[in-house]
Amino acid sequence: MTGPARTRRGPRAGGADTRQAVLDAARARFSAHGYDGTKLRDVAADAGVDVALVSYFFGSKDGLFTAAMAMSVNPAELVEALLREGTDGVGERLIRRLLALWDDPASGSPMVALVRSAATNEQAAELLRGFIESEVLMRVAAAIERPHANLRAALAGSQIVGLIMARYIVRVEPLAHCEPETLVAALGPTLQRYLTGEVAVGDA
Amino acid sequence: MTGPARTRRGPRAGGADTRQAVLDAARARFSAHGYDGTKLRDVAADAGVDVALVSYFFGSKDGLFTAAMAMSVNPAELVEALLREGTDGVGERLIRRLLALWDDPASGSPMVALVRSAATNEQAAELLRGFIESEVLMRVAAAIERPHANLRAALAGSQIVGLIMARYIVRVEPLAHCEPETLVAALGPTLQRYLTGEVAVGDA
Repeated sequence: MTGPARTRRGPRAGGADTRQAVLDAARARFSAHGYDGTKLRDVAADAGVDVALVSYFFGSKDGLFTAAMAMSVNPAELVEALLREGTDGVGERLIRRLLALWDDPASGSPMVALVRSAATNEQAAELLRGFIESEVLMRVAAAIERPHANLRAALAGSQIVGLIMARYIVRVEPLAHCEPETLVAALGPTLQRYLTGEVAVGDA
Repeated sequence: MTGPARTRRGPRAGGADTRQAVLDAARARFSAHGYDGTKLRDVAADAGVDVALVSYFFGSKDGLFTAAMAMSVNPAELVEALLREGTDGVGERLIRRLLALWDDPASGSPMVALVRSAATNEQAAELLRGFIESEVLMRVAAAIERPHANLRAALAGSQIVGLIMARYIVRVEPLAHCEPETLVAALGPTLQRYLTGEVAVGDA
């Protein structure tokens, strides 16, 4: 890898550990303060590096944001891997897999941060929208081979974002604390129908 | 109309200024203390009016909340009115009614603002959660007379919030610009199943 800009007394060299420390700090800041409330200089301070190093690695805040989100499981790859196992029961498998990821705060908070930011910041919404439309929806649409593929994928996304809002952000009961399998039974058939069932007049 | 209580210097008649003062006080109380922690008499005291005047203007706490949040329609009453027409087709009727409201920015933006706030601000999330749990879910649960009534109502809420996020906030295509009836056909059966169908093992 290319050497990073070095700070004069920098205890942190610009290697993988430093990059990781910056990403950890960024995830914590984005989770706690949302997109607008996170400053590169605060992330740099939390990670114990110069802000110039953060810029060097990630360019800008949205670059840092993208990289921080990419540290968790890539949603596009996750959905694609599930669909490679076939479309039978994909609704239940998808919701079960997502809950296993997100019920653990360590792997769940990046997605919560992403949704929080998208709700209030147009750039973050555009970032999320661009990622969803260009990566997730396209791959899902290609995999399911059904009419209205983009609509299907977006409908599934709407229920998934609604679950994130209800269980992890607004925390409405009983959704906030019910067993994962309760949600698998309730939401699985919804996702299954959106992805493979009848969603529009004339569908099989 | 009943005259308002007069403060000693009593500039406040029961007109538009007084109504505005009550709404300002309500917004401050709801923000600071959440839905359950807000009492009509405290709002009245803050605004320097008698509590009877608050009831006169807004009826009840959910009416005051609706007005304070600048919502043109009280969500609790909307859902209750739809359910009074019976549960047949309530999923499609609900989604059609909500889209008619929210596709018009004048009546839609307050709900979008509320969801945005709840996504990033814990006080706002508590406010929304309190309102939904105390007013909306309770009435829906009472009206549908099915097992798992609270779960059903919350599941429907999760899909509705997901729709708000996808169509009005993140604006993912094709959900952002598709015809309302496309969404009625796609989301109606989901809401219908959540409210009246099989959502858990052992449901009829």
